[in-house]
Amino acid sequence: MTVHDFLPRPLALVMVGKPARGKSYTARKLSRYLSWTGYRARVFNVGSYRRHLLGPGQDHSFFDPRNEEGLKARQRMAEAAMDDLVRWTRDGGEVAIYDATNSTRSRRAWVAEELGRHGIDCVFVELFTEDQSIIDANIRQTKLSSPDYRTYDPDQALKDFRTRVAHYESVYEPLTDESLSFIRVLDAGRSLYANRLDGYLPTALAQFLLNLHLGKRSLYLSRHGESLYNVEGRIGGDSALSPRGEAYAVSLDQFLRNALPTDDVRLWTSTLRRTQQTARHLPWKSTAWRPLDEIEAGVCNNLTYQEIAERMPDEYAARKADKLRYRYPRGESYEDVISRVTPVILELERQTGPVVIIAHQAILRALYAYFHGEAATAVPHLSIPLHTVIQLTPTAYGCDEVRTALPPNPKAHFTAGI
Amino acid sequence: MTVHDFLPRPLALVMVGKPARGKSYTARKLSRYLSWTGYRARVFNVGSYRRHLLGPGQDHSFFDPRNEEGLKARQRMAEAAMDDLVRWTRDGGEVAIYDATNSTRSRRAWVAEELGRHGIDCVFVELFTEDQSIIDANIRQTKLSSPDYRTYDPDQALKDFRTRVAHYESVYEPLTDESLSFIRVLDAGRSLYANRLDGYLPTALAQFLLNLHLGKRSLYLSRHGESLYNVEGRIGGDSALSPRGEAYAVSLDQFLRNALPTDDVRLWTSTLRRTQQTARHLPWKSTAWRPLDEIEAGVCNNLTYQEIAERMPDEYAARKADKLRYRYPRGESYEDVISRVTPVILELERQTGPVVIIAHQAILRALYAYFHGEAATAVPHLSIPLHTVIQLTPTAYGCDEVRTALPPNPKAHFTAGI
Repeated sequence: MTVHDFLPRPLALVMVGKPARGKSYTARKLSRYLSWTGYRARVFNVGSYRRHLLGPGQDHSFFDPRNEEGLKARQRMAEAAMDDLVRWTRDGGEVAIYDATNSTRSRRAWVAEELGRHGIDCVFVELFTEDQSIIDANIRQTKLSSPDYRTYDPDQALKDFRTRVAHYESVYEPLTDESLSFIRVLDAGRSLYANRLDGYLPTALAQFLLNLHLGKRSLYLSRHGESLYNVEGRIGGDSALSPRGEAYAVSLDQFLRNALPTDDVRLWTSTLRRTQQTARHLPWKSTAWRPLDEIEAGVCNNLTYQEIAERMPDEYAARKADKLRYRYPRGESYEDVISRVTPVILELERQTGPVVIIAHQAILRALYAYFHGEAATAVPHLSIPLHTVIQLTPTAYGCDEVRTALPPNPKAHFTAGI
Repeated sequence: MTVHDFLPRPLALVMVGKPARGKSYTARKLSRYLSWTGYRARVFNVGSYRRHLLGPGQDHSFFDPRNEEGLKARQRMAEAAMDDLVRWTRDGGEVAIYDATNSTRSRRAWVAEELGRHGIDCVFVELFTEDQSIIDANIRQTKLSSPDYRTYDPDQALKDFRTRVAHYESVYEPLTDESLSFIRVLDAGRSLYANRLDGYLPTALAQFLLNLHLGKRSLYLSRHGESLYNVEGRIGGDSALSPRGEAYAVSLDQFLRNALPTDDVRLWTSTLRRTQQTARHLPWKSTAWRPLDEIEAGVCNNLTYQEIAERMPDEYAARKADKLRYRYPRGESYEDVISRVTPVILELERQTGPVVIIAHQAILRALYAYFHGEAATAVPHLSIPLHTVIQLTPTAYGCDEVRTALPPNPKAHFTAGI
């Protein structure tokens, strides 16, 4: 969690690309990933400055490069956003993301100069594609629900937006200056070109961008069904499911087969038997992954919270005082779990189809927090109850969520072992 | 340390490139980094099969594409290496690096087919440059000390080698098939193109390759001078230097100014005062980095080993039994340190000039182990004494080392505080 000490100066990631290439979505994902790994990060979206200062709903002519008033106004917006960015880095901001089309060499030169003047490192991130299916998918997912089109009829909105894009076609100058530091993402992540990246963080972000894609897909998170240790109130261990837990496994199977009538599903469990038992009716091949194992309770393994409070009152109190950083003796802290789960997050970002994860409370708290952009301090207290499926669908603007509590299937009360 | 669970199938990295592009050096660095992060990795160097089976010292005509016998022999070598690679993955090997020029499409097609047949994922790693200074530097650093040229006069060796390279010029077909998974490294890391990378590990390796360079530079590792806690035999804490430690700081300064009569030196310390005090006479700007702080001793902080043995005999015994994985209560294990120090290693690989690191015993054990390719189990026992500068110079074939014990400067016995 201290890797962010490797930032000698503030860094600005400068988005570059025609409209509907996924810049704002990518900017937000970068910001969330940076916050997740411990950096103070923020997106400065020039379009929102326009909407804020001039109101939403400019039609496409505002963006016509022959429209002098429009040009001047857009320059002022770019400057306003840049001023805020600079001020924010002086107040301790670490990684700023300057989100606009930045489509001409002269605009990029101005950006680089401003940042350089204020001692802020600059890496351009160009999202380049001419694949119409990618562009259309982006338009559908993001633009038509943008505040700019709230008052528009959908067909009218599409038409206006396509004309806006056309204005940029005539002025767009791709990023070819090999003296600049940049990352070019092609066709939404199929390939990536990195040039003159300087520093640990830009290379880590190149790795993140290689795993990111723009498609929409759902993750289904569930804890294992009730385990024998849950019944006794014990933590840790590797106990089997209780009868209620087994019944949940049946309910879960019915629910997921209905939600995902397809073969193309990734199913991940931990290496502990209670998650594997919970998954055993599901029709998809499951992969057991150690990074999904529950928080390691060390010397507190197999104890109840009451036993801990009685036998190790100092440990009990220390955990209550700082549940994020408290580490079980010979065990882990929530911070360790957050760190451990980062490769899982990269793997999740890579998936283009639905993913079902059957894991444990601490692990799912961490994953949930990442997708919702929750702060690390909130993680140990998030509500992830037993016998509930949480469906997360990351969108352009955040993360949709649907929770379904599944009562253990009453027809399935039996003690079938494995 | 369990991130390597994310390897569903064995992976083969297939080097591609003309001679003297740094393939074998890069293959070895990849192998070391993979081992470091917990994978079972191994390099299969086709050239060494040739040398082993046919003896070293083939002259350039062996590599002439018009030499039928030579072609057949080289195909046999490629097959022998591939057979061993496949067998090794069946015995549990995880990441194999198939190191040869692999310069034609047909050869690469054969490689991809063989690997696919055995269920091994395939990522090509092409090292591409036409920059003669890079090529010549590689030739000087690696080729002329190769076993192939042991009996040659240096000028003769260079001439023969250049003719060998010329044979490859005529047959080399750059990697352009966009349906393949590949990473192309250009001009020794200035830029990188990644295509269709599938999986967490290949993207992590892309990040590593972005930080790697081929130049030769030295690292100077030193512990802080003797601290007040060292004198008392206490661990942890944030004590100041003892008089002997202060004297070491003076000796260190004299030694390093002599060894590095240049401004272009990176100087890194930990955030603990004993390393910063040790660095205070040095003429270069120093950066304090938390990942370089000593192993966190948790509840054992500020105790002597004797006090630990008396008050916490179980802890004392547990540490002796498994010093690598043993974690101080509320503290760290050597495994944690190895993990924590990985971003430092990436930063170190990036540096093209000399680096001076003033840190602590556990941290330096970890760094030392990485550069020498030591196993993780050896780390907690490596010898890193006080008042000694260890100069490491990674080379094409390993890591040169020079240790200099610096007696604390007798003229400098004084208790000057900061």
